[in-house]
Amino acid sequence: MRINVQLRAFALVIAATLCMGANAQLAGGNYDATAASQGAANAKAGPRSTPPKVIPVPSEEVSPQMQALIEAPYPDYFNAAPKDADEWKALINRRAAPTIAAIPALAEKLGVRIESTQMAGVHVFIVTPKVVGPHNQRRLLMHLHGGGYVFGPGEAALPEAMLLASFGGYKVVSVDYRMPPDFPYPAATDDAMAVWKELVRSHPARNMAVFGTSTGGGMTLALVLRAKDEHVPLPGAIGPGTPWADISRIGDSYETNEWVDNILVTWDGWLGRAALLYANGKDLKDPQLSPIYGDFSGFPPAILTTGTRDLFLSNTVRTHRKLRRAGVVAELNVYEGQSHAQYGLRPEAPETREAFGDIARFFDQHLGR
Amino acid sequence: MRINVQLRAFALVIAATLCMGANAQLAGGNYDATAASQGAANAKAGPRSTPPKVIPVPSEEVSPQMQALIEAPYPDYFNAAPKDADEWKALINRRAAPTIAAIPALAEKLGVRIESTQMAGVHVFIVTPKVVGPHNQRRLLMHLHGGGYVFGPGEAALPEAMLLASFGGYKVVSVDYRMPPDFPYPAATDDAMAVWKELVRSHPARNMAVFGTSTGGGMTLALVLRAKDEHVPLPGAIGPGTPWADISRIGDSYETNEWVDNILVTWDGWLGRAALLYANGKDLKDPQLSPIYGDFSGFPPAILTTGTRDLFLSNTVRTHRKLRRAGVVAELNVYEGQSHAQYGLRPEAPETREAFGDIARFFDQHLGR
Repeated sequence: MRINVQLRAFALVIAATLCMGANAQLAGGNYDATAASQGAANAKAGPRSTPPKVIPVPSEEVSPQMQALIEAPYPDYFNAAPKDADEWKALINRRAAPTIAAIPALAEKLGVRIESTQMAGVHVFIVTPKVVGPHNQRRLLMHLHGGGYVFGPGEAALPEAMLLASFGGYKVVSVDYRMPPDFPYPAATDDAMAVWKELVRSHPARNMAVFGTSTGGGMTLALVLRAKDEHVPLPGAIGPGTPWADISRIGDSYETNEWVDNILVTWDGWLGRAALLYANGKDLKDPQLSPIYGDFSGFPPAILTTGTRDLFLSNTVRTHRKLRRAGVVAELNVYEGQSHAQYGLRPEAPETREAFGDIARFFDQHLGR
Repeated sequence: MRINVQLRAFALVIAATLCMGANAQLAGGNYDATAASQGAANAKAGPRSTPPKVIPVPSEEVSPQMQALIEAPYPDYFNAAPKDADEWKALINRRAAPTIAAIPALAEKLGVRIESTQMAGVHVFIVTPKVVGPHNQRRLLMHLHGGGYVFGPGEAALPEAMLLASFGGYKVVSVDYRMPPDFPYPAATDDAMAVWKELVRSHPARNMAVFGTSTGGGMTLALVLRAKDEHVPLPGAIGPGTPWADISRIGDSYETNEWVDNILVTWDGWLGRAALLYANGKDLKDPQLSPIYGDFSGFPPAILTTGTRDLFLSNTVRTHRKLRRAGVVAELNVYEGQSHAQYGLRPEAPETREAFGDIARFFDQHLGR
């Protein structure tokens, strides 16, 4: 059975590659032919038809370190389809292992200390930089990690929290929220909310920001929606980086940047499967799952970050526009050539320092002291 | 000869369409096959290979009026290759005629008055709204129109100036700068600079903003660079909308959004031919032609606008990041699903009011009174 599937896939690769080869020749070697066929295919109103492409690595305004990320191959798991909880856990642990192994050296390099503890019954890490900024003594950040609601267990969640702690001089509480396959919705958001409620008991909410990338960005938005509903104080600022604001596959860049983004690649791979696993039968357009469908009025100031090749470019700009339409202060930064969340993947890239420097400055500007 | 060329193009359309049809079936009908071939094509570091696509019109956060623009066919002149000055002029006039014919009704609808006059020997239009805003009595905007340095002669340049005059309550001077084929570089920028120098004689520079879309955005940036060099006072704010900051075809979205953008479509059509016509042998990377290569330090606050499908998405975000890296206040707005400059093409679209409303508010925030 498995051999048959592999043979079938192999035959399809050959077939597709042959025809793509023909088109690639047309596209690369003969602009006139491509222009003619494209003109014919797009001569009437309707969906846009685009040809196969070979897209070079961008050069200007992109550092060599970032170019290396942009030219990297697709992840080997981009189309993973785990059949059961054990297969999910095997994939989750395989991805997490190298990240976790690298944490001590990264902590040393970034000059941060990590403590593992509990808050409101939820496992959290407290990340403390060597020097807490002079304005940040009574400030605190809460971090919600990314990973499609499945990846990033335990210490694997920490690099982003460590970057902002180090570059911004902030103390950060990173929430190791429960995840599928064992704990689908609403476990993750319940854990985030429990920690936030605990934090606002001991700290002025306006002195705290909540931030996170991808799923962590979606959870940040969902947390604010829920805090509004439950009349819990809101944070003084938020940093939803390329937020998974719409997990239902709605958004133009799910199409335009499909196969272009070399981190997420496509919604139809592991990503959409993770969305369905997390939702556990609930409507994907419920605002607690896809916060873009919530009411953003009264939200705290927000800073958003994405890249031109990001599969979540539309998630990010839709969120930005919806915040602005609701009268919320919202800042948008878009990086040249970057796929999903690449601004946070390589601590030594100048773009990483730039992106987290911008987030730190934004929080400094908007948080109470 | 001409018949042969047409026959050849027709044969290529057929050939390309047949093969694209095969791939489109694979892409649309068989995700597994596409994923397998894409995985194989992107299993090593290097340029990104992407398959043919059929991209639907986006729905969420996009008004019906904007959806109509997004689903429109390519312009019939997207690949025009005028052979001489007469052919350029015929195309320029064919494009301009319907816009010019619609100006009186648009002026009526937007409640603006238009005067044609001269400033420093340059033809300009003065656009005055029925009501100049209470804070805007001593303010003035200078408008540099778009059109790839060739399109938009005379009144055809006016719609954008009229939109900002009307929505923002500003008096606007729109510069009808000289253009190719008769007047290549530096005529356009000489005219813009002459008018700016004239304006700063009678108005405080900090009470004035300069704005324009596409080529007008590139010219806005080039004007500030030149004013810095010549020690002429700088405007209080600028609004380079999706600026043609790099006319040399460098920028990731020249690739990623090629054939996706239904306004410009590709650099290799009329657009690049216009760049070469304007440059007239000068280096395309000269900062007066591609201002992204200039020094942005000391620039006034800037607001930039683009869309996720814009061929100039990278021009816009590269400009934004470079301004921010130079310590300049710079705001970025990116609209879901829009191709090049579509935020200004349909006065009745809510996105048009939103985009120009944001620009007007930004100017109000940063201009002197």
